[in-house]
Amino acid sequence: MPKEKKLQIIPLGGLGEIGKNMTVVRYGEEILLIDAGLMFPDEEMLGIDLVIPDFTFLVENREHVKAIVLTHGHEDHIGALPYVLKEINVPVYGTRLTLGILEGRLKENGVSNDMLRPVKQGDSIKAGSFNVNFIRVNHSIPDAVGLAITTPMGTIVHTGDFKLDYTPIDGKMTDFRRFSDLGNKGVLVMMADSTNAERLGHTPSESTVGASFEKAFHNANSRIIVATFSSNVHRIQQIINTAVTYKRKVAVLGRSMVNVVNISRELGYITAPEGTIIDIDEINNYPANQVVVITTGSQGEPMSALTRMSQSDHRKVGIVPGDTIIISATPIPGNEKLVSRTIDNLLKLGAHVVYGRENGIHVSGHASQEELKLMHNLVRPKFFIPVHGEYRHLVKHAKLAQELGMKKENIFISENGQILEFTKNKGVVAGKVTSGRILVDGLGVGDVGNIVLRDRRQLSQDGIIIIVVTMDKEQGVVVAGPDIVSRGFVYVRESEELMDDVRTRVEEALARCEDEGITEWSGLKSAMRDALGRYIFERTRRRPMILPIIMEI
Amino acid sequence: MPKEKKLQIIPLGGLGEIGKNMTVVRYGEEILLIDAGLMFPDEEMLGIDLVIPDFTFLVENREHVKAIVLTHGHEDHIGALPYVLKEINVPVYGTRLTLGILEGRLKENGVSNDMLRPVKQGDSIKAGSFNVNFIRVNHSIPDAVGLAITTPMGTIVHTGDFKLDYTPIDGKMTDFRRFSDLGNKGVLVMMADSTNAERLGHTPSESTVGASFEKAFHNANSRIIVATFSSNVHRIQQIINTAVTYKRKVAVLGRSMVNVVNISRELGYITAPEGTIIDIDEINNYPANQVVVITTGSQGEPMSALTRMSQSDHRKVGIVPGDTIIISATPIPGNEKLVSRTIDNLLKLGAHVVYGRENGIHVSGHASQEELKLMHNLVRPKFFIPVHGEYRHLVKHAKLAQELGMKKENIFISENGQILEFTKNKGVVAGKVTSGRILVDGLGVGDVGNIVLRDRRQLSQDGIIIIVVTMDKEQGVVVAGPDIVSRGFVYVRESEELMDDVRTRVEEALARCEDEGITEWSGLKSAMRDALGRYIFERTRRRPMILPIIMEI
Repeated sequence: MPKEKKLQIIPLGGLGEIGKNMTVVRYGEEILLIDAGLMFPDEEMLGIDLVIPDFTFLVENREHVKAIVLTHGHEDHIGALPYVLKEINVPVYGTRLTLGILEGRLKENGVSNDMLRPVKQGDSIKAGSFNVNFIRVNHSIPDAVGLAITTPMGTIVHTGDFKLDYTPIDGKMTDFRRFSDLGNKGVLVMMADSTNAERLGHTPSESTVGASFEKAFHNANSRIIVATFSSNVHRIQQIINTAVTYKRKVAVLGRSMVNVVNISRELGYITAPEGTIIDIDEINNYPANQVVVITTGSQGEPMSALTRMSQSDHRKVGIVPGDTIIISATPIPGNEKLVSRTIDNLLKLGAHVVYGRENGIHVSGHASQEELKLMHNLVRPKFFIPVHGEYRHLVKHAKLAQELGMKKENIFISENGQILEFTKNKGVVAGKVTSGRILVDGLGVGDVGNIVLRDRRQLSQDGIIIIVVTMDKEQGVVVAGPDIVSRGFVYVRESEELMDDVRTRVEEALARCEDEGITEWSGLKSAMRDALGRYIFERTRRRPMILPIIMEI
Repeated sequence: MPKEKKLQIIPLGGLGEIGKNMTVVRYGEEILLIDAGLMFPDEEMLGIDLVIPDFTFLVENREHVKAIVLTHGHEDHIGALPYVLKEINVPVYGTRLTLGILEGRLKENGVSNDMLRPVKQGDSIKAGSFNVNFIRVNHSIPDAVGLAITTPMGTIVHTGDFKLDYTPIDGKMTDFRRFSDLGNKGVLVMMADSTNAERLGHTPSESTVGASFEKAFHNANSRIIVATFSSNVHRIQQIINTAVTYKRKVAVLGRSMVNVVNISRELGYITAPEGTIIDIDEINNYPANQVVVITTGSQGEPMSALTRMSQSDHRKVGIVPGDTIIISATPIPGNEKLVSRTIDNLLKLGAHVVYGRENGIHVSGHASQEELKLMHNLVRPKFFIPVHGEYRHLVKHAKLAQELGMKKENIFISENGQILEFTKNKGVVAGKVTSGRILVDGLGVGDVGNIVLRDRRQLSQDGIIIIVVTMDKEQGVVVAGPDIVSRGFVYVRESEELMDDVRTRVEEALARCEDEGITEWSGLKSAMRDALGRYIFERTRRRPMILPIIMEI
């Protein structure tokens, strides 16, 4: 009898974090990859543009990767693909909008789109031993899917990012029946979205936002500017619908907003009566009360259109008193202050600003507790892995599953890189693979690591003091310097005395070295560094980076 | 007839921001100062420890400052006093707890406490032409007061930071009757706390938190650790009360927590049965289920006790599975991620963590809309200045006042430095005084300005490349270098090729200068900076600081 093949689930990203989702499903040697997302950097990752999962494991097993399947077109699910596809050449399956958005990203990065394979919600594909069925779900972007992955060991259900919307904008509800059918047939493992596992009740329907737009449009008697996530196509459709009701023209602003609206209109995900959508340059051809601008910047992002407008720094749109600004989003954790500042600046310009939860101007795209409970009841998996969440979300989701009757030992709060291995009756932790984060800074992928970040951190806090000395190598004597240059430390013109003292200390340190016969560059450098570091800390309570440079002639 | 003296209100801090509250009341030349607070730095203020108001105006008018009156002991109301009192020597009036906390701060900064003058809630003092009555209010620190300032022009009411708590922990309610009496007699100007002007309804009573503690303590069967704001003395009292009920000993941890608990016990604001409070070193002498630790770190502050515990990095307390951690605070905007990370880390250590709004484990210390409405109705001022809030809070508070029937022209949304001048019937904007922020970095007060911050910002994003060249001054030729050193740019060992190319570019630039006869240091420097900046940006899409240094022999 041949050795039975093993079924493994290995998250490479997305566990213990919201972002860079990427999960390996492996049967025997064959690999199916679910999503390949990016994450935006934490504040501590100074200068970093974005973060992708360390996918060494995939590269090492590249000949076994059968396919990549995508759940939807958000950055945290597709944003790493330009990097992954440079290394691994396999078919990428996704729905049309997902691939439409992805194509733009690939083009920007000079990566071919040859391997993209569009599917429709409901379709199935085969990749090696895997059969993958794409199940329609509601989310804050259209054309989102969950996955049913059939393997010889059993079926894996991945919910994708989802909510249950009984009144979706496009009339297409999460395919309950499919999840229910799968449950009836028996599901081995479920992975489910944990983002809102802490939220009680039900996430409101996307369509509830429409009523809030109605109200805000009704109250506005001049121009309306709405900021939202560019990927929230249903939201954009609702803004257009309300604009049509109120006989307003719609202009679109902000690079990513323009891109997504163009793709969505091409593919038919956004519709508007002929003549409704106008170019941003045309808005001044219409009375202010006949114009709506849809824009980026709902998170207060520094370079975004709304932020620039709020700083009176946008080339095309200037805020004038009487404008109504609707911020149709809640701040992602970490962005609260940026969003608040934008609101304050808009108010100072005399705009009327509609924002905040109480106005019903935004709803989440993720399932709250009661929806999660329904999903668990439909799918009734043998094993459960909460995914897509920070650690506390996973813990909460696991607790929820236990409250619904699952045995604790059948629930796995896993982590990136951890191998979970499943047979028909058993799930075990079976080791680890390489995982982690790769930092992308400009064109550099992975060339900024902990040492560089540590240096940036120190530089950011107290700046740098550079000491340059030119020495005669043969004679071991100083022929020029020490020259002292500082940046980010003190405003030099007002601290001349301090800088003079600094020079004196360095000269003293060099003299001591001469007395003690220290001539090695390394010995001289640490003498200068030590003497100065201590002195500066005592005098200023700061710890700038001290960088001695010795030139030799 | 002598020229009538003018009554002015000049905020030097606290408007358009939550923090560094400081307000000048001026009658003729006489000045009364209300509060002198600090603010914690924004993320952009790299390396800055704290921010205080620019009080140049006070220094320039120091001989006219009659007194400083304090509303309560929070940092954003007293934290700038160590700096102000070094420049201005006037009596400082505050309640006992306020002055108790202030004394500690003054001592740390080597400032005398000679001028502190304790008052009781309800007392009045006289300072020049001003008569100041201290009115009891509820807030998240005991012994808080609002102020009634009587001047020959009329009465000014300043609410201080307040809420209306009908069931306060110490039984001492906001003195409604006093505010009502003032209203009956006629109030010229009111300044009122706008922090929660966006919140509907009523802020819950501090005592509601007690019920949540009861529940959490009831569910815990091992050690309990509660993190809260050290200044929230009533909260600490409630923790102690619940501990007594559950027959637990209480230990206090974290420098500021220990300080405030000591002062509060000395002054009688915290009481505990003999033997309840034990030293932190004694906790292991008791079974885990008989211990409560009260600690700092409710905001996830990097160096705080709870954060260290969550990283298994605290000398005295290690988290063990079964511990219950109660985070009795909500994150201050900007701290959300830090708090989340602390919670995640505690959960990973196996602790049970009680956090978040739904657990009722925290209430605000500031009045919500219904309380504000009551205050407006009691005081019925002629003029109103919303204070203590970011711009959108001030706008909301102003709108609230309008809804209550005030005329728009009698409401002043002011800003720091703006002079508001009042007569009995009229209020006008009457110019500006110097205002702004002073950055404190270590021992340096004001020596870090925009240039230093801009440098720190650039250094933090992409690091620095230093080019050193030693030149023979007379002959104008390079005798050593160029040496290239970088920090925070790339990990050099993996980017040797790039750094070699960088050197080549610099050498080429120097050769070009020689060809073109450029010998001035400044010309050489800009040639190097330009050549390299462009090259590096094209190759890496980064913009490190480029710092050429020319040594001469």
